[in-house]
Amino acid sequence: MARHGSIQSSGRHGTRRGRFFAVDGGAVADADEPVKTTSGHSLEPDVAQMRAAIDAVAKRIVEHVASLPTQPAWGNDDPQAISAALESAREKMPETGEDLETVLAYLFDEAVPVSFNTAGPGYLAYIPGGGVFDAALGAWIADSVNRYVGVFAAAPLLSQIEANVVAWFAEIVGYPESARGFLTSGGSLANLTGIVTARREMLGENFLDGVIYASDQTHHCVLKAAAIAGFPERAVRMLPADDDFRLRAQDVAAAVEEDRAAGRQPFMLVASAGTTNSGAVDPLEELADVAETKNLWFHVDAAYGGFFALTARGKAALAGIERSDSLVLDPHKSLFMPYGLGSLIVRDGAALHRAHTIRADYMPPMQAAMDRVDFCEISPELSRSFRGLRIWLPLKLHGADAFRRALDEKLDLIAWATEELRSEPEIEIVAEPQVTVVAWRWVPEGADEAELDALNQRLLERINRRQRVYLTATRLRDCFVIRICVLSFRTHADRMEAALKDIRAALEEMRTELSSGAASQS
Amino acid sequence: MARHGSIQSSGRHGTRRGRFFAVDGGAVADADEPVKTTSGHSLEPDVAQMRAAIDAVAKRIVEHVASLPTQPAWGNDDPQAISAALESAREKMPETGEDLETVLAYLFDEAVPVSFNTAGPGYLAYIPGGGVFDAALGAWIADSVNRYVGVFAAAPLLSQIEANVVAWFAEIVGYPESARGFLTSGGSLANLTGIVTARREMLGENFLDGVIYASDQTHHCVLKAAAIAGFPERAVRMLPADDDFRLRAQDVAAAVEEDRAAGRQPFMLVASAGTTNSGAVDPLEELADVAETKNLWFHVDAAYGGFFALTARGKAALAGIERSDSLVLDPHKSLFMPYGLGSLIVRDGAALHRAHTIRADYMPPMQAAMDRVDFCEISPELSRSFRGLRIWLPLKLHGADAFRRALDEKLDLIAWATEELRSEPEIEIVAEPQVTVVAWRWVPEGADEAELDALNQRLLERINRRQRVYLTATRLRDCFVIRICVLSFRTHADRMEAALKDIRAALEEMRTELSSGAASQS
Repeated sequence: MARHGSIQSSGRHGTRRGRFFAVDGGAVADADEPVKTTSGHSLEPDVAQMRAAIDAVAKRIVEHVASLPTQPAWGNDDPQAISAALESAREKMPETGEDLETVLAYLFDEAVPVSFNTAGPGYLAYIPGGGVFDAALGAWIADSVNRYVGVFAAAPLLSQIEANVVAWFAEIVGYPESARGFLTSGGSLANLTGIVTARREMLGENFLDGVIYASDQTHHCVLKAAAIAGFPERAVRMLPADDDFRLRAQDVAAAVEEDRAAGRQPFMLVASAGTTNSGAVDPLEELADVAETKNLWFHVDAAYGGFFALTARGKAALAGIERSDSLVLDPHKSLFMPYGLGSLIVRDGAALHRAHTIRADYMPPMQAAMDRVDFCEISPELSRSFRGLRIWLPLKLHGADAFRRALDEKLDLIAWATEELRSEPEIEIVAEPQVTVVAWRWVPEGADEAELDALNQRLLERINRRQRVYLTATRLRDCFVIRICVLSFRTHADRMEAALKDIRAALEEMRTELSSGAASQS
Repeated sequence: MARHGSIQSSGRHGTRRGRFFAVDGGAVADADEPVKTTSGHSLEPDVAQMRAAIDAVAKRIVEHVASLPTQPAWGNDDPQAISAALESAREKMPETGEDLETVLAYLFDEAVPVSFNTAGPGYLAYIPGGGVFDAALGAWIADSVNRYVGVFAAAPLLSQIEANVVAWFAEIVGYPESARGFLTSGGSLANLTGIVTARREMLGENFLDGVIYASDQTHHCVLKAAAIAGFPERAVRMLPADDDFRLRAQDVAAAVEEDRAAGRQPFMLVASAGTTNSGAVDPLEELADVAETKNLWFHVDAAYGGFFALTARGKAALAGIERSDSLVLDPHKSLFMPYGLGSLIVRDGAALHRAHTIRADYMPPMQAAMDRVDFCEISPELSRSFRGLRIWLPLKLHGADAFRRALDEKLDLIAWATEELRSEPEIEIVAEPQVTVVAWRWVPEGADEAELDALNQRLLERINRRQRVYLTATRLRDCFVIRICVLSFRTHADRMEAALKDIRAALEEMRTELSSGAASQS
């Protein structure tokens, strides 16, 4: 039979029967006889080669991690040099290999340093995390053993490790036993699955009139997730937040009434437990009440704030989170894990299952019961990495208490930094810390409101120029504000002291500049 | 102002001004003075601790990888023992830590061995890959330096590494310069984004009448992705494949006509380049023609087969793939990478951009031009791991040629195995290899068709019982068939010889059993 286009018959090689050594036709094989390996392939290093490669990499990693406190908080400060480096960094696919030392030298000496040092203690920007050392060992092990945890049948005890991690997360926030969830690459895909699950449970297939409620402080990945899930732009109603940047429960109730009267289909409420802008925690108890009364799926994006539930202060601030229907927690944020670790937990695990079950003949038998449900049956992925090990290993090695203490330290640090800033003349605290972000700006006496954005922009540049800390800005109440977000386990009091010193020094410089500028104008 | 629910004011701690050492109010800090670290935290090992941990992990990994050829092809062969082990593997979140040796002993001695040995040379099941050693080093480095590559501004040279990898993939399949793409966790999410992008480009917001065409051999993740993207079940029309398990171009054309006449909205054609069932490659040139004529977005799921385009035979078999609008390639399959590495490439990168752009105030400046477009602007994720390093490192160290030769070896091996099976009496080749899968079954003389499924099921069990190879089954033409899929870079002729020996030995056993059973019945 002609097999046009099939690989086997289409080339110069064709079928190669007899090219290899003969096989004893029909003889019963001795199953105890080990297969003699015919490796030696370049992709299969021998023991000495493996050890040498590990040594070379280990040396670089240890040096890098040990020097994090003395590395600049950001190294991408020279746009022209970066442009030039980027041009030469475009390369064609290599046909042959280079030696490891050359490749590591490029990576560690040239490429890595030109970056926001997201791993370092001075990174007080966006939402840090740091990346605990042992999680990286977990990643190395997971990729080396390369087992598949998407179904229990394939690697039952490893799947259980990942299931344990998810169960711990459910326990941390006070979810019931019925909860199920899975690890994602981050908050964006976790929010996506939360929306998809809510859509299926609340609306079914005709969902284009569905409405999702959230505050205007909600992370934009919720908008993106809604768009991916097929919702039109009008589906997400971003309600203006209150003076503390929180969603008002009564606003949600009123909007639901209005939309129902207009024939639309309110079905989901997204609360934030730690916004990216200002760390605001929406009033979860009140919102849970509204969701209940108005029959909305209650989803909490606690990607940033969620793991503070490990602490006493966090638990109090997050009260009501346990009443949600679904929940996003990002271990790469408040559990200090490396990038690439988010999670979605759904209170009623069966809902997650209904949103993801599709059968195929080539698949192994699935776990029928929700008792040990296969991850591929409750998540959008089939083949994917063994993420759980990256979290399990550090938690096993250090215990939850180490993380709790580190989180408490962050709460102390932001409280202290806020009071120091408040004591500073001309500093306005725009957003008080609700988790570990404070947002503030400089309001020099007599300055025009119209100038403030530019002045604070320059102030921020002067703070960061010192490269001991890296801060970023956002807009709150239509003003340019500077944020301090302390969330790396590597950030301690010494670094916050440096941050405050650098802020004060930069303020001095700005004041000098302003008065000399004023002087020169007069 | 009262801040009910805020963490800072809600607990026993409250604000702790003055708890830490004093800060020199207003003094200009010496930016050159390094910050004295106050670490010593358990999450921050010192150099000696890091080295000791690395040594312990390295010892385990090297032992494990070196022994892969002599490890059983699967170790989860005792359901009762597994049940018992699973019960004790459920554990509460640990409050305090355990030592690394204990944790590694559990992992490597107890948990990992109880699994399909997806990393080993005997894994000829589902779609293997193996997981190259250096990719795992890449994972370790990526998590240790923990930089963020989602936007160029954050780590320009590292983002460029990932962009290079994507560009190499585009080059391998012959895509134009306008193509853009990104790395995913695997084929499922890559197919999802392909569908979302097509939906946006072809249908806009009112898409519920949209129709996607695919063969009944298409991977079920396409159905799942369509459901996640909001399509109703009726949206995916799975057309019956031909005798070679391929989608017929004329069937697509006819179905489109029919659906348009019925007022539905045909918009997308999904072809497979290597199905999971049988490795079938749909006739890509013919399907590209139909897509063009009928104005359909042409998506190719080449998750399994795509990287064979590196070889001459593969390039010929995949002819037409370069005409697709979007394309899924899984490095964790035919590029031998560890699990967790897929990719989506879109011919018109701007379409990918349109499907994913949403602005937020707290985000760093994005690259405006498509020249160096930020990954978070063309993909569903924001924070996520530095996947590119896991692929870049092995390609840099070995060059594409090492991968090409390994792929050619797989093509040789499957051709050889197929001819050996064909030469065996009573073996029916149900699906000829189109990439590196052969599907076959035993049809003993005089056996009733009704018995064949059960007989082949038992045959498969007997083959696998030897634990030198692990094969899996599927259903083709409503029959139970056994598959051999050779796609691990660690599988060589010796292992295929063992597979053939074990198949012949198991056949002998089955024949003996059958004749003695027949004898006892007579």
